[in-house]
Amino acid sequence: MLDLKTYLEQKRLLIDQTLEQVIPPAEEFPGSIHRAMRYCLLAGGKRLRPILAIAAAEAVGGRADAVLKEACALELIHTYSLIHDDLPSMDNDDYRRGMPTTHKVFGEALAVLAGDALLTEAFRLLSGGCRNGTHRADTMLEIIQILSEAAGSRGLIGGQVADLESEGKVIEESILDYIHTRKTGRLITASVLLGAKLAGGSADEVACLEAYGRAIGHAFQITDDILDVSGSTERLGKPAGSDLKNNKATYLSICGMEEAQKRQKALYEDALNALKLFDDKAEPLRLIGQYIIERAT
Amino acid sequence: MLDLKTYLEQKRLLIDQTLEQVIPPAEEFPGSIHRAMRYCLLAGGKRLRPILAIAAAEAVGGRADAVLKEACALELIHTYSLIHDDLPSMDNDDYRRGMPTTHKVFGEALAVLAGDALLTEAFRLLSGGCRNGTHRADTMLEIIQILSEAAGSRGLIGGQVADLESEGKVIEESILDYIHTRKTGRLITASVLLGAKLAGGSADEVACLEAYGRAIGHAFQITDDILDVSGSTERLGKPAGSDLKNNKATYLSICGMEEAQKRQKALYEDALNALKLFDDKAEPLRLIGQYIIERAT
Repeated sequence: MLDLKTYLEQKRLLIDQTLEQVIPPAEEFPGSIHRAMRYCLLAGGKRLRPILAIAAAEAVGGRADAVLKEACALELIHTYSLIHDDLPSMDNDDYRRGMPTTHKVFGEALAVLAGDALLTEAFRLLSGGCRNGTHRADTMLEIIQILSEAAGSRGLIGGQVADLESEGKVIEESILDYIHTRKTGRLITASVLLGAKLAGGSADEVACLEAYGRAIGHAFQITDDILDVSGSTERLGKPAGSDLKNNKATYLSICGMEEAQKRQKALYEDALNALKLFDDKAEPLRLIGQYIIERAT
Repeated sequence: MLDLKTYLEQKRLLIDQTLEQVIPPAEEFPGSIHRAMRYCLLAGGKRLRPILAIAAAEAVGGRADAVLKEACALELIHTYSLIHDDLPSMDNDDYRRGMPTTHKVFGEALAVLAGDALLTEAFRLLSGGCRNGTHRADTMLEIIQILSEAAGSRGLIGGQVADLESEGKVIEESILDYIHTRKTGRLITASVLLGAKLAGGSADEVACLEAYGRAIGHAFQITDDILDVSGSTERLGKPAGSDLKNNKATYLSICGMEEAQKRQKALYEDALNALKLFDDKAEPLRLIGQYIIERAT
């Protein structure tokens, strides 16, 4: 039987090695920007998005190494969004991944620019992916389109804006849904799509995996809300209770703990159902779904 | 004979109309990010980069409308870099394109996010470009690669970092060259390449146009340095003398006015030489080269 812990650890190492290679070395001029880029990117992190891409590729019969570089682009986008979200003008967070945030160490200007550079680097990585003939150019372009939509003002950025503007306000559940699907859901779904499409999944397989991605993306955000209340700073790598501090609406503040846990279970069922047609090769995806919920318990 | 003023005005209108269409409407939720994105983007500007792309496409026998959307991606990247460069933690500028800077109107958080969104939108635009079969997928990917390299930590961002770190210091000419080629030169060269490649220019044509782009990109930055000393705030749309204020090294502070003007002329000759093999269709490019120098006189 598959041991998820070992699986996640193996993939994480693979991703960390690849990230280390694709980012300019710390000593390249001007060194400060490259050190700042590497600081938060290589500080650790679960690497959930690239692992989901790899697991989705494997689920449709592909190999991890065929999508590894492209999967790393997901982590670059995720890390850029963390660095910018942590800025004093936004969430003003001092700790991330258990270390002082990028602007605390390198100053605000370099934090803004390091985020910009990681975002740009993600697209450079994706556009270089078919040079060696591994992937078809039209598939790569489709992936770039999916990721740029997930990351743009109708995705990640729109979610962050709605989140900032909701601080201290009583918001409707529909706005909270918007924030959650945009801030977390769409990039997680895009991660699964990236792996499935690059590995040549059929239209049916891709549609099922997209449904899986949506369900676990949603569950992930609820978990985050629960952890913000019940987790420790040590375990989170950032201060617990920061949503409360910033007066942010969460599933808990709107629906309460019991309802939040009920929803998580329902979403986990949705995720498993979406994988019904898949064989053992989708086992990592199933276990990751379970892991996402269990983080919170 | 071609009247450059009319040519620039016609293309500028075409680009302004297209930019207006490709960016999400101001009323789309969350409205603040879309208003912030549109504010600086549609505030005017010479649209030099997209015009260069169109003129390069025409020089190799292509049509403006076949590269128009992709050319707009250049303006999105340029505008994002202006918004971020103007931030308080960077150049701390209050005026741009004759209007208060984005962070002055929308606050810092939205200025950072609007820049992020414009950058992301540029890649969305480029990745959607071949859906209708106008361009080959592999050419589009090559363009995305060229632009992401020109905009990344080895291009635009590297230039901005070196520029910030040189403030108040006596720097060598090699560092100034690095700053100039990265902050301005590479995106201008990329603009010419985008037009030439998308319009199907031959390898020889593309190489000549790349040399043209390098020469005028360099000339453009020297012009900017001269204007910062001799131009008026009204004409520049931003405060004159801001380089001096920020203690920035310029060609003038290193080489003096006479030498700067001599270099400009030499670069203009280089630009014309690079176009030697082209017929009348390259006339706009020749006149733009002249225009870039004459801005400063």
